[in-house]
Amino acid sequence: PRRRQLSVDDYVQGVMNSDRAIIAQAITLVESNLPHHREKAQKVLKQLMPYTGKSIRVGFTGVPGAGKSTLIESFGMMLCEQNHRVAVLAVDPTSSISKGSILGDKTRMEQLSRHPNAYVRPSPSGGTLGGVTKKSRETLLICEAAGYNVIIVETVGVGQSEITVRSMVDFFLVLMLTGAGDELQGIKKGVMELADAIFINKADGANKQSAITAKMEYNRLLHFIQPITDGWETKAFTVSALTGEGISHIWEVIEKYKEVTIRTGIFETKRKEQMINWVHSMIGDKLKERFYGKPLMKQSIAEIEQLLIHGHTSPSLAVQQLFRIYDEKR
Amino acid sequence: PRRRQLSVDDYVQGVMNSDRAIIAQAITLVESNLPHHREKAQKVLKQLMPYTGKSIRVGFTGVPGAGKSTLIESFGMMLCEQNHRVAVLAVDPTSSISKGSILGDKTRMEQLSRHPNAYVRPSPSGGTLGGVTKKSRETLLICEAAGYNVIIVETVGVGQSEITVRSMVDFFLVLMLTGAGDELQGIKKGVMELADAIFINKADGANKQSAITAKMEYNRLLHFIQPITDGWETKAFTVSALTGEGISHIWEVIEKYKEVTIRTGIFETKRKEQMINWVHSMIGDKLKERFYGKPLMKQSIAEIEQLLIHGHTSPSLAVQQLFRIYDEKR
Repeated sequence: PRRRQLSVDDYVQGVMNSDRAIIAQAITLVESNLPHHREKAQKVLKQLMPYTGKSIRVGFTGVPGAGKSTLIESFGMMLCEQNHRVAVLAVDPTSSISKGSILGDKTRMEQLSRHPNAYVRPSPSGGTLGGVTKKSRETLLICEAAGYNVIIVETVGVGQSEITVRSMVDFFLVLMLTGAGDELQGIKKGVMELADAIFINKADGANKQSAITAKMEYNRLLHFIQPITDGWETKAFTVSALTGEGISHIWEVIEKYKEVTIRTGIFETKRKEQMINWVHSMIGDKLKERFYGKPLMKQSIAEIEQLLIHGHTSPSLAVQQLFRIYDEKR
Repeated sequence: PRRRQLSVDDYVQGVMNSDRAIIAQAITLVESNLPHHREKAQKVLKQLMPYTGKSIRVGFTGVPGAGKSTLIESFGMMLCEQNHRVAVLAVDPTSSISKGSILGDKTRMEQLSRHPNAYVRPSPSGGTLGGVTKKSRETLLICEAAGYNVIIVETVGVGQSEITVRSMVDFFLVLMLTGAGDELQGIKKGVMELADAIFINKADGANKQSAITAKMEYNRLLHFIQPITDGWETKAFTVSALTGEGISHIWEVIEKYKEVTIRTGIFETKRKEQMINWVHSMIGDKLKERFYGKPLMKQSIAEIEQLLIHGHTSPSLAVQQLFRIYDEKR
């Protein structure tokens, strides 16, 4: 049977009542690229805006194999048992070619998904990174309006995705692993500098001692890096998703962070900045979309790049030529 | 007496003959914001383009007080004595408010300025960072066409200027200082990750031992950072502009770098990427200039930001509203 069309009010009421089926449909609406869906989604979001902003937004990143999903599930379960309401979203730099999802398996976090206090959103199934980002932010707002008070935004550490997630959360957690011997190798460039806390996972069994050693090494390194959040010192900790040791500590660190940053006003300032920056980055994206989306632009760019590489035009002239094409009547 | 107007051909011939007075005038033309100057500058550049690209482009950064100018002067003198031809430019994030220059004192590098093999360009005296950048790149091309085979681009480490300079040079050198005790404190976020080499200056007298210690510490840290240039390992060294010790080593490192990256093809690939990226970043800048420069846009943005902060509109709607204003007929 065809699902009946929900009205703007149906969406708004359903989300406010925290109806999980309607939340899912509202997110699908937000993720849609169809113009009439976009328009409706914007009406829904506008009505929900006054009810957003009351969660703590936590970003989680880590290399594949670091055990992110397992840890988030244990962490989420713990919070749900303490009567928190937890939503888990993913910013997934889905390839726009394959339209496949890197994170996405629909059965992920099965236990947490079934908890009445949790909402686990599978990854969006298509689109470019920019698109997914925009939608992830809107999805986050919907979850907040639905009353989830801890929003976890997960990302696999590919491309610019950490920077994107950092720009939409209050607290950013980087999950690391330790290996035998060369403990700190393979840190992705710049990721440590985005972190509000580093957790070294799999601190259990034979691995525990090397995780502790790695923690000390990270703390040594962190000493030389300016913390990302004013008035907060980024530190490294160990955790084990397997034994559960250290999981409650994640929440303690986040609560401490919230207390400190709210007291200093940084929390609010950062939220406002993030929202304003979001608007300006959407403006930049849209301007580029128009420019590069102009018919024949792709071909003209390829031609002019060839002229450039062979020294037959200068970069500034190339820009002038491309704008002449852009400004032509269609 | 008024200087006679140079024609496009006068500029081109003068630059190709390496006439320093005409080089200076050509750079002034490139730096001008007047539309008819811009147009003439583009004609000159187009003719010069085939003669560019034959230098090694070296970026120099370092905190104020690190002794950048003194070191560049000694380094440049050494190269000139070896019959290299050296141009020194500055990317200076001049405040667009004060129109004052941070680096600019017209008497800097007096000795080098007088050497027949050198050309030292004082900092541009106004404009925004973006503008200066665009012009610095064009200035670099003029110096190349004039036959300078070592182009040094200097920047004070403010704001985004290191990233800007990194994107226009082949080799990027970061100059550091050491202090007593807390040797590595105060490293600017992300700068180490841009470096192809780190030189610790003032390794002389009582300071020498602590400079050597700092060098070892940096090499330890660098071990954990992915080098910026494929196939090249970034290392730390000591140098003294005062005693001259280590200055010839700077050139050895650069020559080695050139050899390695030319052999692997990275040198050429990076040059092409930099030129293409430059074009696309100019396109982005111009699109934003048009958008934000639209009459009344500033005021509309301020109004809509207020609505946003108070939850009366959503970010996506804010973007829509601003584009509606942008697309209106004037």
